[in-house]
Amino acid sequence: MKAITGGVTAARGYSAWGLASGIKQKGLADLALVYSEFPAKAAGVFTTNKVKAAPVIVSREHLHNENARAIIINSGNANACIGPEGLASAQAMTKAVAEGLKLEAKEVLVASTGVIGKPLPIKRVLKAVPSLVKGLTSTGGGAAARAIMTTDTYAKEYAVELEQSGIKIGGMAKGSGMIQPNMATMLSVITTDAEIEEREILEEMLKKAVKKTFNRITVDGDTSTNDSLFLLANGASGKSALSTSQARQEFYEGLCEVCLHLAQMLAKDGEGATKFITVRLSGARSEAEAEQAARAVANSNLVKTAFFGEDANWGRIITALGYSGIEFSPESARISLGELEVYSGKGLPFDEEKAARILAADEVEVKINLNQGEAEAVIWTCDLSYDYVKINGSYRT
Amino acid sequence: MKAITGGVTAARGYSAWGLASGIKQKGLADLALVYSEFPAKAAGVFTTNKVKAAPVIVSREHLHNENARAIIINSGNANACIGPEGLASAQAMTKAVAEGLKLEAKEVLVASTGVIGKPLPIKRVLKAVPSLVKGLTSTGGGAAARAIMTTDTYAKEYAVELEQSGIKIGGMAKGSGMIQPNMATMLSVITTDAEIEEREILEEMLKKAVKKTFNRITVDGDTSTNDSLFLLANGASGKSALSTSQARQEFYEGLCEVCLHLAQMLAKDGEGATKFITVRLSGARSEAEAEQAARAVANSNLVKTAFFGEDANWGRIITALGYSGIEFSPESARISLGELEVYSGKGLPFDEEKAARILAADEVEVKINLNQGEAEAVIWTCDLSYDYVKINGSYRT
Repeated sequence: MKAITGGVTAARGYSAWGLASGIKQKGLADLALVYSEFPAKAAGVFTTNKVKAAPVIVSREHLHNENARAIIINSGNANACIGPEGLASAQAMTKAVAEGLKLEAKEVLVASTGVIGKPLPIKRVLKAVPSLVKGLTSTGGGAAARAIMTTDTYAKEYAVELEQSGIKIGGMAKGSGMIQPNMATMLSVITTDAEIEEREILEEMLKKAVKKTFNRITVDGDTSTNDSLFLLANGASGKSALSTSQARQEFYEGLCEVCLHLAQMLAKDGEGATKFITVRLSGARSEAEAEQAARAVANSNLVKTAFFGEDANWGRIITALGYSGIEFSPESARISLGELEVYSGKGLPFDEEKAARILAADEVEVKINLNQGEAEAVIWTCDLSYDYVKINGSYRT
Repeated sequence: MKAITGGVTAARGYSAWGLASGIKQKGLADLALVYSEFPAKAAGVFTTNKVKAAPVIVSREHLHNENARAIIINSGNANACIGPEGLASAQAMTKAVAEGLKLEAKEVLVASTGVIGKPLPIKRVLKAVPSLVKGLTSTGGGAAARAIMTTDTYAKEYAVELEQSGIKIGGMAKGSGMIQPNMATMLSVITTDAEIEEREILEEMLKKAVKKTFNRITVDGDTSTNDSLFLLANGASGKSALSTSQARQEFYEGLCEVCLHLAQMLAKDGEGATKFITVRLSGARSEAEAEQAARAVANSNLVKTAFFGEDANWGRIITALGYSGIEFSPESARISLGELEVYSGKGLPFDEEKAARILAADEVEVKINLNQGEAEAVIWTCDLSYDYVKINGSYRT
């Protein structure tokens, strides 16, 4: 497969647009629309937070209809925790898009991201929908990706074209705080022109891909009320992704590739992040334990601040493993920072200058081997900096 | 009961001292000794981290001997994760104290706190033990409390005298990062002159008191490899704490009072803390669920940075409750900041100026009512500030 441009409009038969509706101040873009010319098989994964934003409830309902044609997303307001008014607003958004595009409301999905607990200025949003529909263009992926940003510092898009089938898969996503997707993910839309004959298979593939990509990143261990990922497959390529097991495998790999790139972009652009950190844990007794232990390391504030300070403080890594809840023998474990081994059953003497060079890089890999099994897992995260505190000390006001 | 001065030397029959042995730079105090003139019934609770520092292993072993006479504690080095050499150092410390005080090594307990993975400069420590023994004085509680500090900004002592029995209970503790005690606690020593006829009862009371005090604080959710709390009861008051059920109750309340004050001091002096935050959760179905939900709120970086920024961002509180893992109905929950209700099934309009005044205070109470049961729990924590990142970005180097 090869990387291509275009984000959610990379695949055939999709158009998109984004504009400023007035939810955000200073004329910043805050409303995005993605549209498929053809009915598309649709799948979604959502937050596991017990508190679910109104658009999550509406989109889950609309997904009972197996096909979708459009997705409307606003940023700057999560439309969460404001009572029945929130549901009415989310429904009104789908209805307005349906009217503008001559669809049924149940063919429209909806998502929101931003501050929790403030009523959405729904009149402004509805007023902007006709311009949004009018703006739809097959080169509008970038405009849509920009309109869903909150504290993200850049728009996140990725797309691939599959070598054998020529099928295209593209997507966009936004981060970048309250990020620890849990059997769900933050806001993301992925589109493909593959033909998928069975919706269940699309759903199954999406869940599997998300488990290894979006669900393996963390910024701050907080799982949002609004996490939503949608996947549309409209068949515009004329190629089935399910015709042969080879075709199916190729499509699945392409989907994983797009998910992985978007997920890693989210971790790289985590709030205040100065470094992208890969925690690669091997030698575990099961994949679940590998993930649990790697996640404890990736979520430790002490580990994250040490990386920000470029301090080879491996003691915090072994400590996090120790309280992760899994059984292991500290005497058998090994830890490396990049290629530099710093712990093998006990702390090793190491070249501080070499450690400093490794930690000065923008990307650092922590390798942990528990030496008690064959299972492994990777978690991607970022460091914890002054700017994380700054951004989150004054987010709402 | 009434508060008195003296820390670990407040009770009769105890002396203590602290000095600089050369573990820390700049002549900072780093070695403390607490001594009981009489054999004291001893109890201890320790970290549940799978990675245990050498002194934790040695002290657990020595506690099989029911009595203890002395506790030696160093700061500036955790004596953790350095292999068999660490155990030898911890044992050498107890032996040196035993020689100086004409005791058996098994009557001496040991604890360490500081950086993980660096060999303890044991020669310097052993060389300083004779001066430490010589310095012992019945007014030395303060010197000992200062010598166990790491990033603490002040020494933490508290003591009470019981009204009925005249028994005294006093203690010292140190924080202030890597703090989420888990069925254990950070470094603390509590002494009493009560007579406790059965060691098992002392242990049982200590565990019960710690569960509601030290185990209810969190600074950063990281559980240390070195958490240790020791309680000595030397009977020097001539009064039994177990003679009547009333005496037992009075003693237990006094013990809880000392634990609570020391624990709250740790949360107040959490690394970089500008605010002391009390999360009081009621209306839960069980105490375990109440604690789990309150802990999720107290450990959320987003909640903690919002308090640092004095931002009434209750959306992050309901979000943390939502991912805490307990079942509840967001529609029935209520949240107040101090006396100001901000959420009742949904966000409420509230007076932003009043909220700003409440959040500007040094101490803030978050009250959460899940309205689905009678159980409650309180967790004490602090905010997350620039200084937390600063302190922990360069702790080791």
